[in-house]
Amino acid sequence: MAENKMTKAELQERITLVPFHKWLGLNVVEMNEDANNVSIPWREEFVVNPKAGYTHGGILAAIIDIAADYALAAKIGAPIPTVDLRVDCHRPAMPGELTVEARPIKLGRTFSTAEAFVYDSEGALLASGRGVYHSQSGS
Amino acid sequence: MAENKMTKAELQERITLVPFHKWLGLNVVEMNEDANNVSIPWREEFVVNPKAGYTHGGILAAIIDIAADYALAAKIGAPIPTVDLRVDCHRPAMPGELTVEARPIKLGRTFSTAEAFVYDSEGALLASGRGVYHSQSGS
Amino acid sequence: MAENKMTKAELQERITLVPFHKWLGLNVVEMNEDANNVSIPWREEFVVNPKAGYTHGGILAAIIDIAADYALAAKIGAPIPTVDLRVDCHRPAMPGELTVEARPIKLGRTFSTAEAFVYDSEGALLASGRGVYHSQSGS
Amino acid sequence: MAENKMTKAELQERITLVPFHKWLGLNVVEMNEDANNVSIPWREEFVVNPKAGYTHGGILAAIIDIAADYALAAKIGAPIPTVDLRVDCHRPAMPGELTVEARPIKLGRTFSTAEAFVYDSEGALLASGRGVYHSQSGS
Repeated sequence: MAENKMTKAELQERITLVPFHKWLGLNVVEMNEDANNVSIPWREEFVVNPKAGYTHGGILAAIIDIAADYALAAKIGAPIPTVDLRVDCHRPAMPGELTVEARPIKLGRTFSTAEAFVYDSEGALLASGRGVYHSQSGS
Repeated sequence: MAENKMTKAELQERITLVPFHKWLGLNVVEMNEDANNVSIPWREEFVVNPKAGYTHGGILAAIIDIAADYALAAKIGAPIPTVDLRVDCHRPAMPGELTVEARPIKLGRTFSTAEAFVYDSEGALLASGRGVYHSQSGS
Repeated sequence: MAENKMTKAELQERITLVPFHKWLGLNVVEMNEDANNVSIPWREEFVVNPKAGYTHGGILAAIIDIAADYALAAKIGAPIPTVDLRVDCHRPAMPGELTVEARPIKLGRTFSTAEAFVYDSEGALLASGRGVYHSQSGS
Repeated sequence: MAENKMTKAELQERITLVPFHKWLGLNVVEMNEDANNVSIPWREEFVVNPKAGYTHGGILAAIIDIAADYALAAKIGAPIPTVDLRVDCHRPAMPGELTVEARPIKLGRTFSTAEAFVYDSEGALLASGRGVYHSQSGS
């Protein structure tokens, strides 16, 4: 895999520039050549089912999109626009901190692909997915 | 297409039960046999790009998931869990009210599919997608 | 929607240039401003289940990819490379002629999106999906 | 990961029962607890571009669908119906043998997810994707 063009601190800084990311509370836990790990504290506004308290699939989709994009950003030097996104929901996400691990699948000149896996605090896989991003745009 | 099992008021009530939907501010504008229209006011926490102010792809993904799910809920009588979701981003979503139109593609015994299209206030298509939902679960 | 840049005969000619399309037996039935209809005769090599004789999901995926691509080709003047594809299987495809209807969702400068719906000879929806294609490539 | 419920020979036998698989020429190269490897010899009918001779995206989609399904079949004991499929095309697939590696992502009671990666004979990643399959159906 290509070398990283950001340090962990720079990745955190770039992520936190984004108002929606601040609201989500994304925290870069680990960053290496292969993958990034980002944690997200639970918040009440995430909830889809008021009785069970589990997190909305739309939040999981957003987290997968962001993590996959920044797995590419780490290699490219900046985040790039989402072309499309695919999310699979594997298990209900009970209240509690989430962790998402993301890695590039293909770095391309025009289009790049990355995948991400969301886990609960006990390591159970809650959701996963992949996105295509527009490399050339240099946003 | 099957008959609706909810009135517009019931659909709005079911949507607003969900904390994440309240945060998004979803408002049922129209409901008929073929499709539902839901509007979403812009809010600052939606923003992905602080300079341009446009809305995060993760928010668009969440809106598509919700609208597609409730297009099925209108026919089934209750929302059902997301199995998976696919979202295509067509244009940057500038600040302003969003509208999402959703319709069932297939109502099945175990799995159902619906699609949704997100427009800006001038009717330009910003994003679209489709999801598969678990019909049998009766959540 | 944009004007077509091919006649129905030109569309058929472009499709039939491709060896895999010849094997599939694709036949352009109708072409207008909004959508194209292509029919595909059943063949024994399509079969996934030797007892029931129904068509493989991989064949349906291929048909959706092709139909969506040529719905864009009709507007652009030439087919363009697939970036990604999403296919939903709705019903088993029993032996018999298939028809696929495809239409552009968004024509973009760098990438374009189109969707396609596969029906059996009685009009039942068997599968549907959407693809993103690389507009700029000019293949 | 769960134990395999088939030997490599049984996997090959189940795959070859299917007429479309015979036409594709699928050959199980390796099978272990984590993943399966299947090779596919090039054939002229795969071609999308008569000049360059590279393989149609629809063929790559079909191969990903089959490999992902049989990665689940190895754990379940039989192939199961495709609910939906997502395919990303990374590079043109020049003439030559293809290899596809597939592994389960989640084995579920009602639906299961698996992913697959298609390589050329030099190990370059050509396409990848994931599918959701209907576990309960017992086909």
